[in-house]
Amino acid sequence: MKKGKFYGIGVGVGDPENITIKAVKRLHEVDVIVLPEAKSGEGSTAFNIVKEYVKTDVKQLFLEFPMIKDVEARKVFRKNNADKISVELENGKNVAFLTIGDPMTYSTYTYVLEHIADDVEVETIAGITSFNSIAARLNIPLMIGDEDLKVVSVNKKTDIYKEIENNDNLVLMKISRNFEKIKKAIIETGNKENAVIVSDCGKENEVVYWDIEKVEEVPYFSTMILKREGVKEWKRFLKIL
Amino acid sequence: MKKGKFYGIGVGVGDPENITIKAVKRLHEVDVIVLPEAKSGEGSTAFNIVKEYVKTDVKQLFLEFPMIKDVEARKVFRKNNADKISVELENGKNVAFLTIGDPMTYSTYTYVLEHIADDVEVETIAGITSFNSIAARLNIPLMIGDEDLKVVSVNKKTDIYKEIENNDNLVLMKISRNFEKIKKAIIETGNKENAVIVSDCGKENEVVYWDIEKVEEVPYFSTMILKREGVKEWKRFLKIL
Repeated sequence: MKKGKFYGIGVGVGDPENITIKAVKRLHEVDVIVLPEAKSGEGSTAFNIVKEYVKTDVKQLFLEFPMIKDVEARKVFRKNNADKISVELENGKNVAFLTIGDPMTYSTYTYVLEHIADDVEVETIAGITSFNSIAARLNIPLMIGDEDLKVVSVNKKTDIYKEIENNDNLVLMKISRNFEKIKKAIIETGNKENAVIVSDCGKENEVVYWDIEKVEEVPYFSTMILKREGVKEWKRFLKIL
Repeated sequence: MKKGKFYGIGVGVGDPENITIKAVKRLHEVDVIVLPEAKSGEGSTAFNIVKEYVKTDVKQLFLEFPMIKDVEARKVFRKNNADKISVELENGKNVAFLTIGDPMTYSTYTYVLEHIADDVEVETIAGITSFNSIAARLNIPLMIGDEDLKVVSVNKKTDIYKEIENNDNLVLMKISRNFEKIKKAIIETGNKENAVIVSDCGKENEVVYWDIEKVEEVPYFSTMILKREGVKEWKRFLKIL
C-alpha cells in the first residue's frame, strides 16, 4: 500500500480567515488531523480554526506533548506520538499535524518530523505567526528600513535587559510565566511607551494592553511587541479597539 | 461621499497559494491596487500573485519608491505617493497597497500609512514572510524550545560576527548587496554547515544554495537562514529539490 502523505500545517492564531489558500486546499485532502496539546484546550483552538475546511468524517487525533522538566521523558512522549502518526501513514492515510501559528515557529511538529521515516512524503505549509498577526491587527510595523527584529521565547535564563539593548524591535513570547521580570525591565529601561501586549489575537476574548505598568498578569496566549521608536503613535487607526 | 477603505495586504513571496483567505476576500472588494516599486519589475511580481483574485477592471497604480541616499528626497517621494492614494480614497475608492511578504516586515506600506488621514478606515492583512516561506519549503525549523531568532536586513553597518554570536538562529535579508562580507563571516565562524540560502522562493526561478562556500553571488530576492544547530540534517525530506 502506498504510504500516506504527512503535512505540517500552520493555522494562524485565532481568526479562521488568517490561514493560507494552500493550507485550506490540503486540509480538504487529509484523512487524519493531529491536534497536539501541551495543555488541555489548545487542541480545540486549532480544530475550531480549521473545522470548516476539513472532511466531515476526518479523524481527530489528540496527542499530548506535556511540558515536563525531564528532557528524556519528553523525548519518549514525542517518539510515541510520532509512532501513532506513522501507523496512520503506513495505512495510507494522509495526516495533517496542525500548528497554532506557523509550523516552523516554536512547534512540536519538528520534533515529530525527526521520527518520520525517510520514504514518507512531507509538506510543510507556512502559517501567520502570533507576532505577524498582532502587528497587522494594530497597524504597527515590526521592522522597517535598516531596523532588526529579535524574537524570544522568554524563560528563566532570558536576559531581558540585554535583549532590549541589542535589538531595535523585540517580540517576547510566552510572557505569562515571567511577567513580573519582563514588566520590571520594561519600566526600568524607560520603555513604558514602547511596548504593547495582545492576548488571544483574533479570537473573541482578544485583549490589547497599552499600559504595561497597570497590568498585573496576562493570559497564556500573550505576545509583547517592544519598539525602540515607540508604539503609541500608531494607535490613531485603531478605531475598532 | 464616503471615503474608501485603505488596505495593506501581504501577498507572500511568490507562490499564489501562500496568501490568506482574508487577503483574497479583501482583494475581491478593492477598486485600486497600489504596486510599490523600489526597482523596476517588483510591482509585477506582486500583481502576478494576486491577478486571479482581483476584479477584471481593477486599477493598477504603480508607485515608485526609489532607494535614493538622500533621506529627505525619499520622504518627498513617500508623501507624494501617499497623496496619490489619498485622492483615490477621497473619491470613495477602496485601495489595497500590496506588499511582497508581509506588510509589517520591511514594507514601504507603513511609511505611506503615516500620511493617511485619521478618518480613513485602515485594515492590515498579514502575509507569509520570505523566511517563513523558506523554512516551510525546506522543512527546517526557524526556532524551537528555548531558542531565539534574529532577523536582520544586512547593511554596511551590520556586525555579522556579533549577530552570529548573540543568536541561536539568524535570518539575513537583502544579502545580495553585502554577500562577500556575509560569506566570509559564515566561513570564519565555522558555520558552513549551518547556513542555507533560498532565492525567489516559490517562484519558477527558485534556487536553493546549500554550499555557501561555492556561491559567488545571489539574486536580489535571496534570504539566508543560519542555525547554530545546523541545517543539513533536515535535507532528508527534500525529494523535490
